Amino acid sequence: MPVLVMKFGGTSVANTDRIRRVAKRVGVEVAKGYDVIVIVSAMSGTTNQLVGWVDEISPLYDAREYDAVVSSGENVTAGLMALTLQEMDIPARSWQGWQVPLRTNSSHSAARIEDIPPDNITAKFAEGMRVAVVAGFQGISPEGRITTLGRGGSDTTAVAFAAAFGAERCDIYTDVDGVYTTDPRIASKARKLDRIAFEEMLELASLGAKVLQTRSVELAMRYNVKLRVLSSFEDQGDEAGTLVCAEEEIMESRIVSGIAYSREEAKMTLVSVADRPGIAAAIFGPLAEAGVNVDMIVQNIAEGGRTDMTFSCPTDQVRRAEKALTAAKDAGEINYHDLLADTDVAKVSAVGIGMRSQSGVAARMFQTLRDEGINIKVIATSEIKISVLIDRKYMELAVQALHDAFDLDKAA
Amino acid sequence: MPVLVMKFGGTSVANTDRIRRVAKRVGVEVAKGYDVIVIVSAMSGTTNQLVGWVDEISPLYDAREYDAVVSSGENVTAGLMALTLQEMDIPARSWQGWQVPLRTNSSHSAARIEDIPPDNITAKFAEGMRVAVVAGFQGISPEGRITTLGRGGSDTTAVAFAAAFGAERCDIYTDVDGVYTTDPRIASKARKLDRIAFEEMLELASLGAKVLQTRSVELAMRYNVKLRVLSSFEDQGDEAGTLVCAEEEIMESRIVSGIAYSREEAKMTLVSVADRPGIAAAIFGPLAEAGVNVDMIVQNIAEGGRTDMTFSCPTDQVRRAEKALTAAKDAGEINYHDLLADTDVAKVSAVGIGMRSQSGVAARMFQTLRDEGINIKVIATSEIKISVLIDRKYMELAVQALHDAFDLDKAA
Repeated sequence: MPVLVMKFGGTSVANTDRIRRVAKRVGVEVAKGYDVIVIVSAMSGTTNQLVGWVDEISPLYDAREYDAVVSSGENVTAGLMALTLQEMDIPARSWQGWQVPLRTNSSHSAARIEDIPPDNITAKFAEGMRVAVVAGFQGISPEGRITTLGRGGSDTTAVAFAAAFGAERCDIYTDVDGVYTTDPRIASKARKLDRIAFEEMLELASLGAKVLQTRSVELAMRYNVKLRVLSSFEDQGDEAGTLVCAEEEIMESRIVSGIAYSREEAKMTLVSVADRPGIAAAIFGPLAEAGVNVDMIVQNIAEGGRTDMTFSCPTDQVRRAEKALTAAKDAGEINYHDLLADTDVAKVSAVGIGMRSQSGVAARMFQTLRDEGINIKVIATSEIKISVLIDRKYMELAVQALHDAFDLDKAA
Repeated sequence: MPVLVMKFGGTSVANTDRIRRVAKRVGVEVAKGYDVIVIVSAMSGTTNQLVGWVDEISPLYDAREYDAVVSSGENVTAGLMALTLQEMDIPARSWQGWQVPLRTNSSHSAARIEDIPPDNITAKFAEGMRVAVVAGFQGISPEGRITTLGRGGSDTTAVAFAAAFGAERCDIYTDVDGVYTTDPRIASKARKLDRIAFEEMLELASLGAKVLQTRSVELAMRYNVKLRVLSSFEDQGDEAGTLVCAEEEIMESRIVSGIAYSREEAKMTLVSVADRPGIAAAIFGPLAEAGVNVDMIVQNIAEGGRTDMTFSCPTDQVRRAEKALTAAKDAGEINYHDLLADTDVAKVSAVGIGMRSQSGVAARMFQTLRDEGINIKVIATSEIKISVLIDRKYMELAVQALHDAFDLDKAA
């Protein structure tokens, strides 16, 4: 029988009533003839409580013990879900990570999945079991210790199971009903996308549309797992939610699929830097060492052997960036006249795989912003994304205007 | 290095402060040179919450899933305890049941321990680890599923580890500071015993002095594990608490060690039963099948071919007993004139290994009760115990009078 993977997050399994509700959703897929692998998170709040206890005891904890503690929430949900399904006369059983086994490396608290041998679960499906409920977020190391995959790791667990079992699809049930063209709280015309390409999802996710863990999308792209994001709080048809898939499967290719934004960007400028070979390395080396996540970088045309270097980074890393650059200057490694930080900016990006084959996207974006009187401070582009830094006060206006300009309120 | 097993119950590890407190106790034993195996229960309240969720979902649950759910509380405590010890610079790590492995049979929720191979933990001790923190109450079945040992199973886990590792002693830390000659709430002169024999402890435990799980005492007796019961809330010297041990190790052999009682006993009498061979089997067979725990049994002298049969059972099983006996009468299997139930009785017992070699104990007990004007309704004796059923209103008086009569307020 075809295999379907269904993943339920913490709010979807927050109490026994909600567990019963999502178990009914699982029952619908079983009735369609699927053998279902359900991946569950801990009941919402549980993991935070466990992490809180560890923090109370030991600020610099042993990650092996941390993993043993924080993985326990998922075990509870897995057992409760299996019991609920059994009550509905659906043959089900729970599996903890070590029982599958979901094998990982030994990087505790941020482990990478190495192998999921499907034999045990497949044998149970052959015996008539219809649902394998698997505790998400956890695995077992070569040393036989419990590992965890990092926060949000249950999405990654789900995609890895879908790949290992050749599942027809991996449905991620969450508290939103799909991926939107932009944030509906900012642009009321925002529309749910039926489909989105993996690459677009990666750009949107890292830009702030927090629906899926980035790692799970990367994994889905690598193994070509069809991912569907949908709400566990609404009745769902077969076409509900948003399908994240390879771009070949998206018929209605549109130029721009979504407008992303981030308020948490700051613009920093080194004024009048000596323009010499290796200067970029001399600036961004110390920043990387200091753990500053530099995003956009712009170097102006040099005049008189000096140039201005501008970059963006998260607002809360500005102090760290200033410290690293000042130290590099004091050490004589770099030389600049002034260091300016502008934390009153926002980043707005247009994302779409259609850009690859369509010219004029950047021009339309810049013209739209100009028509609204919005000044662009920094521009950065990739193959499927154009980002600009603008004054933060214009952010909502820019998102709305671009959403209109690219006709995102209209079905493709 | 000699091995010591220390077990901490749920109230002793109820929060991170209490875990820190008991970790200090562990540190004291490590400093003395012991390799310590710590057995932990779930933080108090946790297991009840987990059981509550299972009950909400499924009244007739799959015991395998029940075990997977309810065992998770101990895993949390084990990890937190290991972290706390590490913070104190004591090399420690946690072990879940399947990691040891603590092998059990497949009787989920009431599993019997079959084997605890000491190799893994011993190897870690050899490498310099000083404390193995083991999640109590749980094991792994031959099928690789998680099992639990039944309520209070952490005591049994502790004793089994002490036997498997040839531990010098098994210290059970709990919320009382030892075993008393009787309930101090009833007799203010009740005195803590320094030592008590396994056999006495078994009689006292099953009679209501709920300090140790009966099974753990049986196991300790079979493997001759020295058990010490002591409080985790008081500073403890080497001679604190009560040592439960073989009777050979008790120098100051006294005739009676303790007075136990139970309010939850009912007396039932079948009036005028036909006195024929096999009548006892015909009466107590159906009661056993109905799950009635018959305790004391008295058969009066037969007159005219008929006799009265009296027995005691827990108060909450009276209805069940009546139903079983009425059905047996209706089926023509037994015949009696009347069935009387007296739920207004209590059982009081004197327990002591010294009775074996001393005569006159029963006489002194009966005389003491007579002097207080207390009528005895039923008497039952074993090698080390004399029990009587009396009117419940005299229970406290009987306990106090017997405590005095056997000089239990005085050190042996």
